[in-house]
Amino acid sequence: MSDALLIALREHVGQDNLLWGASIDERYKTDWSRAVSNEPLVVVRPKSTEQVSATLRLCHAHRHPVTVQGGMTGLVGGSQTNPGDVVISMEFLQGVQEIDTAASTLTVWAGTPLQRVQEAAQAQGLYFAVDLGARGSCQIGGNISTNAGGNRVIRYGMLREQVLGLEVVLADGTVLTNLNKMLKDNAGYDLKQLFIGSEGTLGVVTRAVLRLHPLPTETLTALCAVPDDEAVLGVLSRVRQQAGPSLLAFEVMWPDFYAFMTHRVAGIRSPLAELDRDSLVILMEFAADQSGLDSARLEHMLEQAAHAGLLTDAAIAQSGAQAESFWRIRDSVSEFPILLSPYTSFDVSLPIQTIGSFVKQLKPELVEQFPNVESLFFGHIGDSNLHIVVHVPGDRASFPKNKIDEVVYTLVKQFEGSVSAEHGIGTRKKPWLGYSRSPEEIALMKTIKAALDPHQILNRGKVI
Amino acid sequence: MSDALLIALREHVGQDNLLWGASIDERYKTDWSRAVSNEPLVVVRPKSTEQVSATLRLCHAHRHPVTVQGGMTGLVGGSQTNPGDVVISMEFLQGVQEIDTAASTLTVWAGTPLQRVQEAAQAQGLYFAVDLGARGSCQIGGNISTNAGGNRVIRYGMLREQVLGLEVVLADGTVLTNLNKMLKDNAGYDLKQLFIGSEGTLGVVTRAVLRLHPLPTETLTALCAVPDDEAVLGVLSRVRQQAGPSLLAFEVMWPDFYAFMTHRVAGIRSPLAELDRDSLVILMEFAADQSGLDSARLEHMLEQAAHAGLLTDAAIAQSGAQAESFWRIRDSVSEFPILLSPYTSFDVSLPIQTIGSFVKQLKPELVEQFPNVESLFFGHIGDSNLHIVVHVPGDRASFPKNKIDEVVYTLVKQFEGSVSAEHGIGTRKKPWLGYSRSPEEIALMKTIKAALDPHQILNRGKVI
Repeated sequence: MSDALLIALREHVGQDNLLWGASIDERYKTDWSRAVSNEPLVVVRPKSTEQVSATLRLCHAHRHPVTVQGGMTGLVGGSQTNPGDVVISMEFLQGVQEIDTAASTLTVWAGTPLQRVQEAAQAQGLYFAVDLGARGSCQIGGNISTNAGGNRVIRYGMLREQVLGLEVVLADGTVLTNLNKMLKDNAGYDLKQLFIGSEGTLGVVTRAVLRLHPLPTETLTALCAVPDDEAVLGVLSRVRQQAGPSLLAFEVMWPDFYAFMTHRVAGIRSPLAELDRDSLVILMEFAADQSGLDSARLEHMLEQAAHAGLLTDAAIAQSGAQAESFWRIRDSVSEFPILLSPYTSFDVSLPIQTIGSFVKQLKPELVEQFPNVESLFFGHIGDSNLHIVVHVPGDRASFPKNKIDEVVYTLVKQFEGSVSAEHGIGTRKKPWLGYSRSPEEIALMKTIKAALDPHQILNRGKVI
Repeated sequence: MSDALLIALREHVGQDNLLWGASIDERYKTDWSRAVSNEPLVVVRPKSTEQVSATLRLCHAHRHPVTVQGGMTGLVGGSQTNPGDVVISMEFLQGVQEIDTAASTLTVWAGTPLQRVQEAAQAQGLYFAVDLGARGSCQIGGNISTNAGGNRVIRYGMLREQVLGLEVVLADGTVLTNLNKMLKDNAGYDLKQLFIGSEGTLGVVTRAVLRLHPLPTETLTALCAVPDDEAVLGVLSRVRQQAGPSLLAFEVMWPDFYAFMTHRVAGIRSPLAELDRDSLVILMEFAADQSGLDSARLEHMLEQAAHAGLLTDAAIAQSGAQAESFWRIRDSVSEFPILLSPYTSFDVSLPIQTIGSFVKQLKPELVEQFPNVESLFFGHIGDSNLHIVVHVPGDRASFPKNKIDEVVYTLVKQFEGSVSAEHGIGTRKKPWLGYSRSPEEIALMKTIKAALDPHQILNRGKVI
């Protein structure tokens, strides 16, 4: 069976586009976590939509499962190879095909790294609004199939809101090409929505038309200390009203996280005066070009908030370098594996007015279960997205990951939050999907999966 | 069969919630167009999600078709009763359930008129961003199931982008309740996307959580004459870059439309000097509160555009009343049935850089077919959305509607546009769906319809 499939792939996709046996590099067998390494049957590296289509048509006919791989930077095992799968790696299907400045759109092949999309837009004075740490390695097709988020969702929305058109290959090899550039298009069901965020389980994205925005040429960055989590909501409500769409990012660091970054990470200093034990720190970014805020208005806004008792201290970056140093406090998450090993991390959403209580309740629950636990809290709070890092000292083998998951996700369920804000479900969060979705919802997901991929060949065992 | 269904509905939904026989008012038989009047089997007016569920469960079991009705203001026959259908009218399922100011969300029953949603948000200093002429009669559930657009899509997006959570009843009566308020939630497939814009063919929306924005407290309105359609794109590109998200609306009127409104409609005067024959007129609206433009900056922007040869004349409204008088030129579409009868109208999208050529090509084609034709062009050009009104003098009975449709949609197809920008497909545009969607796309729509509504009971014969 597998031999017949291999022969057919060689014939219809071309030997040059296949890797098998010893020529399969380790990177096709595992993701960045290196948690598992599995041998695929063959790696297909298509150079055209037709080759993706031929590969899927053959796998569908042979009922052979397929793992779709982008930049392999996902955090939930969504592109981890299953043993014996046909791997489709999108790495050769790359390049920006067109930028239409009148329509403010960019048409791109799925295997293109996010950073190349950003740079291509910027070269035309335009802006692609989704950004995340893995920008140099992750691929735009992966960003689309996971509905990626990042720091500026509060202003521009998730990746879903940046997609105007898609080309997708269905499980049976059918190609759906709709490279629409128009903002309004209500002609029948909006099929592209099915493929955005479904983690490659319903189809393989080959090309996309992305919406671009005017490039924010100047920004203002402020770091503020606030007395408690209620003050966070007070500041958010004020800056939303007063700065409107000039508000580009609203990041919150709980005291544990801020202290970790500013006291234990080499080269990071706090620009704020010594903080109270309970103070949270907010990092805000604003557009400051012609249509945005200016620094006098920002100062006035912050002063008003201080008068209202919402802020205890604030610093506005006076240079690009200083703004970068503020962001370094929030973004130095690569220190966790160095300083907090072993640890596990979470990406959850919570109704915004309950995030403070959630943290207050979770911390002692973790301590009760794991007396030496260290937990850090931070996130895109303007988007209801909380990240959590949990470290329990000891060796990696006895690290109680499942028990920590259980504690955290049980509380997320109780707070009616989401077990995945932006990372997706993949395989790692699959046991917890039912904590955020009802049996009726999961049943409908399965109905859709069965309708679009009747032989369950696409990313089998992922998501649902 | 029908009798058994009626008996079961009486038992499970309650006699008080049913209308039958002579008690069925004409408004349940026809839509605003009064084009067709059909007798339903029964009208169900549920007062709870459970009653919607019971109705659908019974209709599913009896394989009996259902027409779902909101405010009956749709323009494509999407809620037109089919003879003998069970009609579900959402009119009693109304009211704003909650406004969460911290999360900036509003939870509402589907049968609530759009205007009540807008007013409830405004009473809390917040803003619901979708607006359209039928606001007093149309229902938010209908707006959701048609993915309504309107004037401010360029700034806030379509209705799809305002929906955070939905409660939906499936064809078999299954209730999916996901009244999510969080901006980020990537836990499995985003099921709500299926029901937004599918015109009631996949499920019945009963409740929704809508995203609110800060209320734009002050606006600036400008009316500008530009020499040709290329200048329209030049002005759009400039104001997008310079005003960014302060740009709330960008409406364009072709010379025929502007002349009609300012010369033939009583009480409307042009605030611009006499225009050249080919001049188009742009109506722009900007947010002018703290985070927006001020009038000096707007004047400067317009002066720069005039120096660049893009504008020949401009007027900035000096009062709310004057701004309203500018909008009246654009919005007095209720004059068409009075002054241009018989006529037909279109709601199409076109790739933005080709809208000018499309109009230039369509006008002579219409004249060739219908020598006495009068055609008017206008639309939300910032969103790629063109509206067209075509009048051919003569009696209503011999009005060549189908032939005009054929001419217009054939050119839309040739320009790779969309036969429906914001009105949907319903029954009236169904023959033309294939002009904007490939056979593969329509086949997938049918697959999804069959998976979610296997007995095809929901809005049978609509959309696909």
